[in-house]
This record gives sequence, structure tokens and C-alpha cells, in this order.
Amino acid sequence: MEGTEGIISSIEFQMVLLLFVSLAGYLIASMINQSAVVGIILAGIVVGPSLLGWITYGDFVSSLAHLGAVVLLFTVGLHFKLEEITKIKYVVIAFLGILIPWIAGYFIAQLFNFDSDASIFIGTALTATSIAITANVLKEMGKLETNASKAIIGAAIIDDVLSLLALSVSVDIVEGTFSASAIVITITKAIAFLGIGALMGQTVFTRIMHRLDQITLINRYPEFIFIFAMMIAFFYAMIAELIGLSAIVGSFLAGVSLARVKLVHCMSFSDGAEYLQIIFASIFFVSLGVLVDLHEITIEILWFILALTAIAVVTKLIGCGLPARLMKISTRDSLIIGFGMSPRGEVAMIVALIGLNKRLIEQDIYVAIVIMSLLTTILTPILFRNWLFKGQEET
Amino acid sequence: MEGTEGIISSIEFQMVLLLFVSLAGYLIASMINQSAVVGIILAGIVVGPSLLGWITYGDFVSSLAHLGAVVLLFTVGLHFKLEEITKIKYVVIAFLGILIPWIAGYFIAQLFNFDSDASIFIGTALTATSIAITANVLKEMGKLETNASKAIIGAAIIDDVLSLLALSVSVDIVEGTFSASAIVITITKAIAFLGIGALMGQTVFTRIMHRLDQITLINRYPEFIFIFAMMIAFFYAMIAELIGLSAIVGSFLAGVSLARVKLVHCMSFSDGAEYLQIIFASIFFVSLGVLVDLHEITIEILWFILALTAIAVVTKLIGCGLPARLMKISTRDSLIIGFGMSPRGEVAMIVALIGLNKRLIEQDIYVAIVIMSLLTTILTPILFRNWLFKGQEET
Repeated sequence: MEGTEGIISSIEFQMVLLLFVSLAGYLIASMINQSAVVGIILAGIVVGPSLLGWITYGDFVSSLAHLGAVVLLFTVGLHFKLEEITKIKYVVIAFLGILIPWIAGYFIAQLFNFDSDASIFIGTALTATSIAITANVLKEMGKLETNASKAIIGAAIIDDVLSLLALSVSVDIVEGTFSASAIVITITKAIAFLGIGALMGQTVFTRIMHRLDQITLINRYPEFIFIFAMMIAFFYAMIAELIGLSAIVGSFLAGVSLARVKLVHCMSFSDGAEYLQIIFASIFFVSLGVLVDLHEITIEILWFILALTAIAVVTKLIGCGLPARLMKISTRDSLIIGFGMSPRGEVAMIVALIGLNKRLIEQDIYVAIVIMSLLTTILTPILFRNWLFKGQEET
Repeated sequence: MEGTEGIISSIEFQMVLLLFVSLAGYLIASMINQSAVVGIILAGIVVGPSLLGWITYGDFVSSLAHLGAVVLLFTVGLHFKLEEITKIKYVVIAFLGILIPWIAGYFIAQLFNFDSDASIFIGTALTATSIAITANVLKEMGKLETNASKAIIGAAIIDDVLSLLALSVSVDIVEGTFSASAIVITITKAIAFLGIGALMGQTVFTRIMHRLDQITLINRYPEFIFIFAMMIAFFYAMIAELIGLSAIVGSFLAGVSLARVKLVHCMSFSDGAEYLQIIFASIFFVSLGVLVDLHEITIEILWFILALTAIAVVTKLIGCGLPARLMKISTRDSLIIGFGMSPRGEVAMIVALIGLNKRLIEQDIYVAIVIMSLLTTILTPILFRNWLFKGQEET
């Protein structure tokens, strides 16, 4: 019952556009024989400020994208059991996968004559791994249950914790407020959350769900458990964000913790989460494309982007792939791990945004990080599909 | 990676709260043996500004609630075939169900000494029927496929079109710009939309979906059709809003139009829509409760609310139930139709909000309409469950 003028900004219009772009992304993906993620991000670039300017990254889009990322990692988590992804090997892979990109990023930035504060920040942006992207590509290919996938997911989770530390250390160094005790507190909070969260999920919440499944009063409403499960996913995401981890680490932990729940009477909450994820993760991938504004690129910055992207991939190959190989993981799986850890995705974008807001980096570096992040994100699905998993896809 | 201060307004926190309140609503519903809708709205009142003040009706909540209403009516639409709900009988029921509440509303407002402009608006607020509420209650009870349900749904859709007309006529009368030609244009647009929308859906879109289901390129991505179906739902909702109908009439029409689609290879989009609806329709019902601020009620206004609510129910019984009985529908089904058409739900609230924004009504009348709307909304499920459908529920 509103006037015509409000339609362009209306919720329906934005939903139609976002879903239309997702569908276009699938078509692009199938035409160029790539992962749907790549197609949807490319479609997002086309409709974003770079070219058509149809979609802007406003409150509505960013809220739904955020929901999408949380739900996506919850559904990914449901595919894993805790003991599969917690191994000392993965801690080594994660640690070196943070340290080497950080150092290399610092020096490449110095080489391009950026000042020391900006260089520290550029290094930090290279540390993060986006689990969302790689996990979705592996899921799409039906490869989530392989050993390499478990290594990637396990290491990427630890990575997220470590890159959070790298971020707060960087901010402290640049702002001259570095203190060892603050770092210890952050580490302690993160470990406590992961430990207590996993324990609570596997005992208390799993038991509650099995109990609810048996209560007649509850299974008169078969949807109750689905709402309950989604509440837990968002609850874990909230706590993760509260202690400074990214929200998706929380929802992933919720998924892993509830992976053993088997319902008899109530409807399947994992099916439900899967359907939610289809709509909202698509919106998340569209939003990643929309965030890229190609107008900001100059010739000088283009060279920096290419160098940064090369460094980003090479340092994860050395930092993650090499230790994997040294720990007797096969060469092919080590390559899968190295390239699988490469996508920086939204995590580097968030780091860049924090740097921009704190005026530690300029607009040009921000754009360079965002595009590096996108290139690494597109590269992995291409290499997986056309080389490392060639001919092995489950369809 | 944000600070603690942002958590309360964070997306995760709001999602946890909304889902928690929904779950509390289910528990309340099962304790007082009522429909889940009633429980969730009551829970919404408790956490809204009336009592606890935990949830405010901000952009995020209203966006998700809006999504919920659109998806809800889409899933309701999928249960119907077009010819089941388009009958001349239903037009009669809808027409009288608009006219009688409008006139009675005007006179009761005059009786309470409100001025003539406000009285016209109060009458208008009584015309609308909220399909969302009744449809959900019928769905919950497994009674969507009964004849009375078809009459209610069919008449409620026509009602929505007619009450839109009533609204624009009222605004024109009050503002002194009443013209017959504008009314004709609005009617023509509404009829054209319903006709063309139904035709396009049953032919073009249904065929496209059957075709897509057969294409290997597409069914490599089984989720493609689900995204496509949701895009159509939001597209219809957008067009409906564009021509001045409420968005939910559009998504209902999309559902009805796609009700005959049978997929062989791709995943079921109706299952997917159902899961989306579980989460977001719950949020919609919570938001209805949150919209009620009981603080605004004084003793004088309380009497007006009671009178208005009684008139609201009685006029739909006379306007819809009586003509149904006269057209040889059984007494019980006529009562179901009369009470089924009673909930004013969010439609009356939207009318009241428009009146408030145009300064045609004051804050006290606004609150009275909202609470009347809520009371009629709560009454129907109670009467259905404890009287008209007593002992017949499918569980």
C-alpha cells in the first residue's frame, strides 16, 4: 500500500534482484564450467558499482549476506565430527599459514614504498583464510569428507583464531599500545569458547534435542527443533563475535557440535538449514562481488594487486602446503591444502575495512586488498575443478 | 571482530532473541492448548515495549517479518488450485464483508465522539481481513483443503483488493480529492494483475520450471529451481506492491500459479519454501506482538477497544457468515467463514499506520486499532481450536 517511489528500495525488489543475480551466476558458472561460487561472485561484480550499479551494499543486503555466511558455516559444520578436525598437524599448518603470509606481505608492501604502518596491515590482511569459500566449493563437489578437506577446515578454523590475534597485535603495534597480557587474554577467551562450546554442544544441547524429539507436546509442532537448532547456530555466532572471533567460526562450531544429533519424530533441522543456506549463501556470494569497485584501480595499483595476489597464494602454498607435505601428507593433498587455504574471501575484506576506518591504510590499498581477496577466492575453485579434482566430481 | 558495545544491536543477537521468543511462543501455545500463532504473538507482546522492551520494531526485524509474511503466503498459495478459490460466491462474501464493517465502524466511532474524518478511517481499518493469520491457523490444523478454508482464502484475497479500494476512497474523501476515475484505474490495475499473473504463472513460469527440470546443465545444481521459485514469489509480491495491493497478495498468487508444478530431477521448492517460512513467519508473528504497546491504553480508550473489537467480529459474522449461510453453505461452515474472516492482523495495523502518518487519526485511535486487530487475531484460533474444529485436528 505504498507509493511507486518506494519500490526500488523495497524489500521485494531487492530480493528479486539478489535472487536473479544468483541465478545468473549459476548460468555463468555452468557456461564457463566453474564452481557456482565463482559464477555468483562474477555476477555480483557485474551488477555492483563496478559496472551496472544495480545493487549497493546497504543495510538490507549486508544483513542477509551476514545471515547467509552464518547459516552456510553451520551447514558445513554439520558434515564434520569434532575429532576429525582437531589434530596437532592442523595447528602446525594453520600457524605457518599465518606467519609466512604476514612476513611476506609486510616486505612486498615495503617494496612498493608503502609506509611501515600500512605494511603491517597489508601483511595482516594476507593471514586470514576464508573457510566459507573453500568449504562451499568442496561441498559443491561432494569432497567435504576427504582427508584434505578435513585438514583445510580444521586449519582454517584455527587460522581464524590466529588471524584475529594477528589483527589485534597489528592494531596494537601501529597504535603503540602493544601488550603481551592483552594477547594472552584474547587467546584464552578464544580457546575457552571453542572448548566450552564444543563440550556444551555435544553434551547439553545434543541431549536437549534428543529429549525434545521424544516429548509429544513438542513434536506436535515438528518445526520446533528446527527453530531451536537455528537459534543455537546464531547463539554460537553471537558468542564468537562477542569475544572477537568472526561469527562464522561460532556457527561452524555449533554445526560440528550438533553433528551427532539423530531425530526420530521431529523434522530434520539439517535439511532446513540446507534450504536456508541455498537462498542466503547465494546472497552472501553476490554481496562479495558487489563489494568490489573496479573503478578504483589505476595502473600502479594494478601491479601491486598482481604482486599481492601472487604472494597471497605462494605464501599459503609454502605456509600450509609444504608443512603438510613434510608431515607425510601426499603431494596432491598438500597442494589441495595449500590452494584450499588461499582464498582470503570476506575475512581479508573485513580486515581491510577495519584498517580503512582506523585510517591505517588509504582507499587504494583497501581496493587492492579487496581485489586480491577476490582473485584468490576465484582461483581456488578453478584449480580444484580443472586440475586437482579433475574428473572426480560427484554429480 | 567488532567491539562488545555493538553486540546488542548485532544481527546474531537479534536472531537469537527472535528465535528464542518464537520457541517461547510454542511453549506458551502448547501450555494453553492454543495455536502456535497465538502463543508467538503473546510472547512478542511480552518482549516488546509493553513489558520487557527487549525487541524493538527496527529495520532489521521489520525486514525479516516482511520476508516472513511473503514466504508464508507463498507456501499457503501452493496448497490451492486457482479454480478452487475463484467463485462468485466468494466475491459476494468478500464484498459484504467490506461494506458492513466499514459502515458499522463509522457509526461506532461517531458514537464515541470521534470526528468524521477519524470515523471514516476507523471504518476502513475494520474492512481488511488478514489472510496470513487465518491461513496459518488452518494450515497448522491441517484444514487448508476444506471447503470453508477455500471460501475464506478466496474471499480474503478479494477482500484485500476491495479494502485497498476502501483505503484509497477514504483517503480521497478525507482529503477532498475523491474521484471516480481514480477508483476505476485502481480496480482495473488490480484485476489485470490478478488475471495476467495467474495466466503467466500457470503457463509461462510453470513451463519454464518443467523445462529447467529437464536440462542437465541446470539439474547439476539441484538448488537452482528453488532459487528460481523464490524469485518468482518475490517478483509477484513486488508487482502487487507496485500497483498498491499488499505484497502478500502477490506472493499468494505466485504460490497458487505454481501449485501444479511437478519436478522430477530437481529438489522440491515447496519443501524449501516451507523451511524458510518456519523461521521467517515465526519472526513475522513475533513482530505483530512487538508492535503492540499496552502502555498507551487508558480507561476511556479501553471501552472503545472492546466496542470496536465486538463490532469487528460481529460485522464479519454478518457480512461474511450470513451471506454464506444464505448461499446454502452449512451453518458450521458459515460460522467458520465468519470467524475466519475476522482477524484484521497486520492489514488493519498498516491502515492505522497510514492514517497516523497522514494525521487523520491520533495516537489513541492508532493503539485502539492495533489492539482490536490483535484481539480479533487471537480470537479466531481460539474459537477454531476449542469450538468449530474441536476434536478434529490432524496431528
